[in-house]
Amino acid sequence: MIARRLTCVRRRAPLIHNITNYVTANDVANVLLSCGASPIMSDEPADIAEITARCDGLHINLGTLRQDRLEGMFIAGRTANEKGSPVVLDPVGIGASSLRRQTAARLLHDLHITAVRCNASELRALMSGVGSARGVDADSADRVNDQSLRSMAALTREAANTLGCIVALSGEIDLVTDGTRCFAIRNGRPEMRRVTGTGCQLSALVTAFLAANPDDALEAAAAACCTMGLAGELALARLQPGEGNATYRCRIIDAIDGMTEEMLSGGARCDLIDMH
Amino acid sequence: MIARRLTCVRRRAPLIHNITNYVTANDVANVLLSCGASPIMSDEPADIAEITARCDGLHINLGTLRQDRLEGMFIAGRTANEKGSPVVLDPVGIGASSLRRQTAARLLHDLHITAVRCNASELRALMSGVGSARGVDADSADRVNDQSLRSMAALTREAANTLGCIVALSGEIDLVTDGTRCFAIRNGRPEMRRVTGTGCQLSALVTAFLAANPDDALEAAAAACCTMGLAGELALARLQPGEGNATYRCRIIDAIDGMTEEMLSGGARCDLIDMH
Amino acid sequence: MIARRLTCVRRRAPLIHNITNYVTANDVANVLLSCGASPIMSDEPADIAEITARCDGLHINLGTLRQDRLEGMFIAGRTANEKGSPVVLDPVGIGASSLRRQTAARLLHDLHITAVRCNASELRALMSGVGSARGVDADSADRVNDQSLRSMAALTREAANTLGCIVALSGEIDLVTDGTRCFAIRNGRPEMRRVTGTGCQLSALVTAFLAANPDDALEAAAAACCTMGLAGELALARLQPGEGNATYRCRIIDAIDGMTEEMLSGGARCDLIDMH
Repeated sequence: MIARRLTCVRRRAPLIHNITNYVTANDVANVLLSCGASPIMSDEPADIAEITARCDGLHINLGTLRQDRLEGMFIAGRTANEKGSPVVLDPVGIGASSLRRQTAARLLHDLHITAVRCNASELRALMSGVGSARGVDADSADRVNDQSLRSMAALTREAANTLGCIVALSGEIDLVTDGTRCFAIRNGRPEMRRVTGTGCQLSALVTAFLAANPDDALEAAAAACCTMGLAGELALARLQPGEGNATYRCRIIDAIDGMTEEMLSGGARCDLIDMH
Repeated sequence: MIARRLTCVRRRAPLIHNITNYVTANDVANVLLSCGASPIMSDEPADIAEITARCDGLHINLGTLRQDRLEGMFIAGRTANEKGSPVVLDPVGIGASSLRRQTAARLLHDLHITAVRCNASELRALMSGVGSARGVDADSADRVNDQSLRSMAALTREAANTLGCIVALSGEIDLVTDGTRCFAIRNGRPEMRRVTGTGCQLSALVTAFLAANPDDALEAAAAACCTMGLAGELALARLQPGEGNATYRCRIIDAIDGMTEEMLSGGARCDLIDMH
Repeated sequence: MIARRLTCVRRRAPLIHNITNYVTANDVANVLLSCGASPIMSDEPADIAEITARCDGLHINLGTLRQDRLEGMFIAGRTANEKGSPVVLDPVGIGASSLRRQTAARLLHDLHITAVRCNASELRALMSGVGSARGVDADSADRVNDQSLRSMAALTREAANTLGCIVALSGEIDLVTDGTRCFAIRNGRPEMRRVTGTGCQLSALVTAFLAANPDDALEAAAAACCTMGLAGELALARLQPGEGNATYRCRIIDAIDGMTEEMLSGGARCDLIDMH
């Protein structure tokens, strides 16, 4: 079931509008192409409504946030909401910045956000209004692993219910929940954290999967996480001696480019967990 | 003849000023280095005149256009015009944005643009003032192939005459015309569309080739298209199993870096077509 | 001794705030990850003080400088100064732009800059207030090699004394001096100039090494230059036929990712030179 979601992205080829940071914009564009979607980037308020209206999904990323980008984010969000397109928020580094924290809160208040994609430290900052993250990475206290799974799943489900949207939490184990059902995903490799922007790329993938799979948004978001995680595993296995994080960056996107439904079906480690 | 144009770029090492988007700026810089030119990027109005005046060519790209970049584009364009340097316009995604469409029209009206480099959907939007493109890619109705060659060549020639500049149209077959002569170029691979920014890179190459070959601008622009297309062919042939669009992105630039005049001479598939 | 500096970066994992250009920001982030540091990028004045205060070092890079970024640079610099974090200035392309030249002068006047990392043409522009550089590359007249070593070392030492900071000068031979001691480093390859942003990456590395090695800033800066240069050597040796500057770009970062203290100890060619 999960794997079919990738095929739907390839078939429907959604056009995704990204309001994103300048550090990882190129990877975001290439990862969208690799999964079968198309990217467009614009943060100019004067024509954002027009661009969002042509698109099938909106990805808002708070990395390198500037105040002169806020207006465009809200215009784009309202346009996507009116059209019924999914809106994904990636609150990059909100633990380190009041402006990013306030912006995330305002976006969640004023818009209908379909999904928030972040790590545990960012989720904690989002929920508490208090930053604990050092930078854009998760604190070690916020690891999602077998020991912390139960408590982190409860936290994530509570966040989904409070925020009224899907939460896709990245970690050793990814948790994807709409507040009712919760998927635990055991794909991915810790080495992915040595490549800048794998989180941004995943947020773009989640947007594309949501846009192409309107019948089951939760499963679509989970499928995007499986795709990214499995790509990280395949890419690491393909690294040659002497290759490191920069080549790994390319190989992850390559792996999505070459991923078939069969490969995803065989490699996805995604289970519905009992929330009670 | 075409292939000698690359050697002139390597010999003259033109310095190219790029006012371009943040998605593909790194690739634009590296592709200019790969062909033997040097890049500089600035979109700050306060010193753009000074920077453009030091450069041998100007590349204006409308991707991720913001209104606060417009002033710099016009200052740079006037400076390049006064100096007699070539100015290349890449109207990325103008089908999707009124601001980009109006900006392209104003740039073409106020400045002497040496060449417009775009795809067929973008050219149609440029000429009609009405966008039909989904995003930054060409619509399938706008394919330039053997069936549509005659009609697309007529359209492109008309555009070149109306706009008063060279038009370099990218597609299955590239068309490069000054309104009188028209080259049809059968290099390139469809897989290049799975790499973001190959169009931006080509526009930068066209600028470098024009800057280094003032004696025959049309042939210079055609040579840039042959170089990019042949690089796409060579790079695809060198991809290994498991490699995809992200590695392809690197290999295309690598192929330009390693391209000799002999390789280009042997691989360029460029013909003057009969316009009557 | 030099090589131990890399181990300190890996152990302390400093968080580095980068106010940098959009052309090479992705490489700057990945190179920081490859050496064991963590990157965060922000140029928004509203929250820069908060971000810099969380960081262990600040890297200010003048590439693609815009006036609306100036305020954030000064806020960040003052915050880093108050905290006692190192501040590294990379005056990219100041030979070509009055604004960049004035900004560099103001930053050096108003802030305590720990180190300036640049090439000889940029240093000359910084000291003279008159630009001679074509773009972002060093003029051939400004080469630092065995012939010019004595005079360039004197110039660099004088600059360090005048500016009151470490100067890390990149060239055929790198010179790193605090005005008293001077290291000459014979690592690196000329092919690195065919990759955009190797200078920006080095400036980020210098920041990380300074942040993790407060006991000897000069040696830390020299170790960063050895690391980058040795990575350029190792990466070039690993290039396969058909690979060029774009793959070289990845391999350089890969080489830092895989560099051990033993490799750096064996490969660093760094000598204190007699300044008298």
